[in-house]
Amino acid sequence: MKKNIITISREFGSGGRTIGKKLAEKLGVPYYDREIIIKVAEESGLDQKFIEEMGEYAPSKNIFSYAFVGRSIDGLSTNDYIWNLQCNIIRELADKGPCVIVGRCADYILRNRDDVLNVFIHADKEYRAERIVREYGERTKSPIERVEEKDKKRSINYQYYTDRKWGIVQNYEVSLDSGVIGIDNCVEIIASIVK
Amino acid sequence: MKKNIITISREFGSGGRTIGKKLAEKLGVPYYDREIIIKVAEESGLDQKFIEEMGEYAPSKNIFSYAFVGRSIDGLSTNDYIWNLQCNIIRELADKGPCVIVGRCADYILRNRDDVLNVFIHADKEYRAERIVREYGERTKSPIERVEEKDKKRSINYQYYTDRKWGIVQNYEVSLDSGVIGIDNCVEIIASIVK
Repeated sequence: MKKNIITISREFGSGGRTIGKKLAEKLGVPYYDREIIIKVAEESGLDQKFIEEMGEYAPSKNIFSYAFVGRSIDGLSTNDYIWNLQCNIIRELADKGPCVIVGRCADYILRNRDDVLNVFIHADKEYRAERIVREYGERTKSPIERVEEKDKKRSINYQYYTDRKWGIVQNYEVSLDSGVIGIDNCVEIIASIVK
Repeated sequence: MKKNIITISREFGSGGRTIGKKLAEKLGVPYYDREIIIKVAEESGLDQKFIEEMGEYAPSKNIFSYAFVGRSIDGLSTNDYIWNLQCNIIRELADKGPCVIVGRCADYILRNRDDVLNVFIHADKEYRAERIVREYGERTKSPIERVEEKDKKRSINYQYYTDRKWGIVQNYEVSLDSGVIGIDNCVEIIASIVK
């Protein structure tokens, strides 16, 4: 079975998003990232910022979600409602054909399809800390702390929604260290696998 | 820093050893696998079979090691003595120059070098079960059970000696699913990274 739907999970600052964009361009297929957040926001009527935060925080850690605790949409908690909506949107995007999807637990959501290649991009903390300062600028918090905090949140969020551990080799067909291999080389390797 | 010492860790039946051999041939560098067991056996005066088993079982699970419990060599338990010997031999092999080393926790043992590329090869159980029957023939135990048992042993053994979890993305610069990507393609990808 040809694998032409590519999901990219990534550690914060590893360049996974850049790899996804470049890969989609190289393969001439759509790239989905913020589009998913925008669609979930549109369909739920909830704020984009809130949906975005939901992708980083598990419900118990999500300060924004407290405002919605107890609110029920279609008989579901807000979190479950948004999660279901996100699952449906990602499944619909995959149904449309070859594409690259970054983040949003897409690897888990599409786990029952045979045409999906799951990629994990990581790199050591020093490389990522240096990269986020270059890409996103300085903050009060140290870049290493920012990297550690984001990774922790993504890991907790992933485990909460999928019941799987984040960053386990077996969940991905390809895992690459972008710091060692280089961003463009990662793109080449993934493209060579799906071509 | 050029990475030209390649360690390959692998799930049982994933073809990691074949990938290692083909990669070493392609790169024109030595391939170390059984050579390490033979060297440890020679230097310790212990049986090759015993050394080999030690690479699969953590001490508490190692029925062979019971015969040696309480025996002390150079003031160390037999297990610690063999582990130290194995560490020294692997470090000496790496000192000699570019090479491919399969198994024996070499990724951990060489963790302080900058010139090492750590690779993890895995594949789903069905692929591996089918492959081990083809490669090693039928046994009384079902191939799926054989795969599960070996993986469990390798995982426990790795954790015992290294204090790290086996199969965590961050411990390897490259992790590949040989069942999806194919053995020859895995060789090409790794070679393209180190070249």
